[in-house]
Amino acid sequence: MKLETPGLNAEHEFTEAARAAVYNAIFSRRDVRGQFLPDPVPDAVLSRVLTAAHFAPSVGYMQPWSFVLVREPAVKERIHAAFREANAEAAQMFEGAKQEIYRELKLEGIREAPINLCITCDRDRAGPVVLGRTHIKAMDIYSTVCAVQNLWLAARAEGLGVGWVSIFHQAALRETLALPPRVFPVAYLCLGYVSHFYQRPELEAAGWRQRLPLEELLHFDRWGEDGGEAAEALKRQVRSDQNAATSGGTFPAKE
Amino acid sequence: MKLETPGLNAEHEFTEAARAAVYNAIFSRRDVRGQFLPDPVPDAVLSRVLTAAHFAPSVGYMQPWSFVLVREPAVKERIHAAFREANAEAAQMFEGAKQEIYRELKLEGIREAPINLCITCDRDRAGPVVLGRTHIKAMDIYSTVCAVQNLWLAARAEGLGVGWVSIFHQAALRETLALPPRVFPVAYLCLGYVSHFYQRPELEAAGWRQRLPLEELLHFDRWGEDGGEAAEALKRQVRSDQNAATSGGTFPAKE
Repeated sequence: MKLETPGLNAEHEFTEAARAAVYNAIFSRRDVRGQFLPDPVPDAVLSRVLTAAHFAPSVGYMQPWSFVLVREPAVKERIHAAFREANAEAAQMFEGAKQEIYRELKLEGIREAPINLCITCDRDRAGPVVLGRTHIKAMDIYSTVCAVQNLWLAARAEGLGVGWVSIFHQAALRETLALPPRVFPVAYLCLGYVSHFYQRPELEAAGWRQRLPLEELLHFDRWGEDGGEAAEALKRQVRSDQNAATSGGTFPAKE
Repeated sequence: MKLETPGLNAEHEFTEAARAAVYNAIFSRRDVRGQFLPDPVPDAVLSRVLTAAHFAPSVGYMQPWSFVLVREPAVKERIHAAFREANAEAAQMFEGAKQEIYRELKLEGIREAPINLCITCDRDRAGPVVLGRTHIKAMDIYSTVCAVQNLWLAARAEGLGVGWVSIFHQAALRETLALPPRVFPVAYLCLGYVSHFYQRPELEAAGWRQRLPLEELLHFDRWGEDGGEAAEALKRQVRSDQNAATSGGTFPAKE
């Protein structure tokens, strides 16, 4: 069979302003738990962020995701009860001062956010053998996470906050949302307009954990190799870019 | 312990042009296998896309990712050999016409792309108990995938192509890159400037599989519930947005 030649995209350059907008979405995106406004999200906006999710990369073009939109208060209440139960167990796992901070943190906005959204992965969507998934079976789950991140960035550009709630027994999610066995709940998101976005991640502001220096996370050709002198310029650049991204300064810097 | 009040971000609105730029990156992003140019990627550009990855959301602010940059031809050759071996096994799993198409598809650009990048997840980065990962242990892997997608979109805005190669035995990756047991290889990416980006995903153009209608992937409050009349307007909007995104037309549409 002859492969069709796809059309070329002659306009693949982004302007500097467009590039900066993409970075701005990436650097100012936050996990939102406590700043949701009750304002309804218009269908036009919801549709755009869902479309962004749907255009994520997927292994073998499998598009394994589905979207369960939760707006009914009774369903949210059951999900919130599942969170409360798991969160009480979670708090017990931390000790001393950490447990004290843990209990003060607001970790979800299930009831306040006008929209909850469970993004799932249908592990059978494209049959038993999927191109690109022959050796790494979890690739379909990874594709679904890419859809989550697309939605998250699109939401930021729309002024919508998103929070990913992960403190659940998955069985409780499955049961409340009536997911069939082949459908795996990957992410439970709270979504809505917000009063503001924090300048820094909340866990950083709370002293829970700090941003790691990116330059220390780089390896060259093999794990543990520091790249020697040839890598020094890149490391300096990374240090400077991390500072710019953290302080919300102009990014990308002029070359 | 008192929690610090993080600063507010007063400028959280994106202009319409900035919003459109984010969607443009999302909709024009492609998995690139065959269009890599040999042009070197400047440190300034590489640093920005790595910084974008580093600003991904992470469970408990764990930042579990590391970046193994592969540029040495001998390492690329070993990785390519691992791909060839797995890909020969993979081809056997498809039957008839599918196998014929499979063998014609170019599925990686390991040797042509100037940079290969393995993004890994250190499962012990923040100790045994991680906030938000108490019940769903894979959350650290999901965080790492979010970093992949951030990098992918930033790369698109920089005019850089990215291809995710997943046809490997993970043990071969581990061995070639000397990853310690606690470090899990999540994504192996090929990265470089490209002659062009395809207008449609290659697997779609090759007739392998088509884009699914997003409206059929929506559920309301519970799996299998179609939302009735109240959901009709959203579904219509989704249909129209999917068309706009596919055809590369103006998006977001004016409200």
